[in-house]
Amino acid sequence: MNDTINTQLNHKTIRKFKDQSISPEIIDTLLDVAQQASTSSFMQSYSIMSIKDQAKKDKLAEIGNQSYIAGPGHLFVFLVDQHRNQMIAKAQGVETDVFSGFDRFFVGASDALLAAQNVLVAAESMGLGGVFLGSILNQIDEVSTLLNLPQYVAPCVGLLIGYPDQTPQLKPRLPRKVIHFEDTYPDITDILNDLTEYDEVVQTYYDLRNANQRVDKFTTQIANGAQRSHPGRARMLEFLQAQGFIKK
Amino acid sequence: MNDTINTQLNHKTIRKFKDQSISPEIIDTLLDVAQQASTSSFMQSYSIMSIKDQAKKDKLAEIGNQSYIAGPGHLFVFLVDQHRNQMIAKAQGVETDVFSGFDRFFVGASDALLAAQNVLVAAESMGLGGVFLGSILNQIDEVSTLLNLPQYVAPCVGLLIGYPDQTPQLKPRLPRKVIHFEDTYPDITDILNDLTEYDEVVQTYYDLRNANQRVDKFTTQIANGAQRSHPGRARMLEFLQAQGFIKK
Repeated sequence: MNDTINTQLNHKTIRKFKDQSISPEIIDTLLDVAQQASTSSFMQSYSIMSIKDQAKKDKLAEIGNQSYIAGPGHLFVFLVDQHRNQMIAKAQGVETDVFSGFDRFFVGASDALLAAQNVLVAAESMGLGGVFLGSILNQIDEVSTLLNLPQYVAPCVGLLIGYPDQTPQLKPRLPRKVIHFEDTYPDITDILNDLTEYDEVVQTYYDLRNANQRVDKFTTQIANGAQRSHPGRARMLEFLQAQGFIKK
Repeated sequence: MNDTINTQLNHKTIRKFKDQSISPEIIDTLLDVAQQASTSSFMQSYSIMSIKDQAKKDKLAEIGNQSYIAGPGHLFVFLVDQHRNQMIAKAQGVETDVFSGFDRFFVGASDALLAAQNVLVAAESMGLGGVFLGSILNQIDEVSTLLNLPQYVAPCVGLLIGYPDQTPQLKPRLPRKVIHFEDTYPDITDILNDLTEYDEVVQTYYDLRNANQRVDKFTTQIANGAQRSHPGRARMLEFLQAQGFIKK
């Protein structure tokens, strides 16, 4: 146990921030941390955009249907970026379709996500809090137009950080045996029949968080989630292919 | 500045480990940290496999063409996992093809990668070191057979951790202005013409690391990388679709 692990074990998503801006020095440190994360084959196939323009924050809040995106906090958008590498190769006389393969998209997404988690951990270690925003994928084409993304660049995940103005409880995770295995993927039928206790733990958590809100068991949430998909998300693959990615 | 950020800023990939096993208590803490990472819509769409069987480590070392995978160290494989959620939904009478959409694959990969980075940061905070293994994707179909992965499960990234038996130098990252932007994606043509200094920094790094090895500039590495792709990687999309993923 140490301060780092203590920070990580106490991670809670923060969606409400004080109206207190983060100093440029802190943002600079967070970007240093982001860049020092591992990157596949040292290709650094990602970029980071800070959204400071209020009109763009408003638009992203509208697209994500999350009003807090427009409020206080520093907003990062992590991008899969093979544009830079493609331009570097081209400048060396290398014209190629390698960036259109699934793996180069996946490599860029991996780089972006490792960097993003590094930033959140660093932010939390300084007493900041944050929330990942998958909602920027809900209308990925509109977001890309808004951010002026060229070919071979796509939004991956957003991250809003700031000084916490709420103190949520720790959200209970799945029992270890359901999510961690040794050497082989087990038959999980029996394990899944055993989620009753976890369902109750999750219900209690929601109950404590907001007694006035509808409270679903974990398994009910998953079943409900399996019945609906954001219509914009259904356009992700088509959009990524139009950006030059995942053609094979 | 604090211990966490100091750890993160000093991240170096470790590929050589002492023959000293990691205690079960430490592995348990790392799994706690993994599980406390953010997960999209609280769906926890990933799993973690610890590979302890030496024959499987040998096979993964052969597939990845990285002999150190078979050596000392604890080997995690992070999996995109929608099998569990699909089974939970089915048990509630919900039969759906939602897990075949690109977005549910991407959500699972995001969950897995955030958890994986959390584990590496925690490990490094305890004096351990590690290396991410994208090489498990080089023959993703063989790896999946080896690990007995069912439909809606796929390898995402490997992570080998252990007690460091090498002390590499910090690897210099791209200049900030090339990778971080504000509000809009810039025309990077001019920026890319300005990578000469970074090319020299990278060359010096490699020179110091191993004077006997061929030393490439960063831009040369990228151009070379754009001319070749691992043949197994070209099968990734086809494999993922066979696993039930990314059909639309």
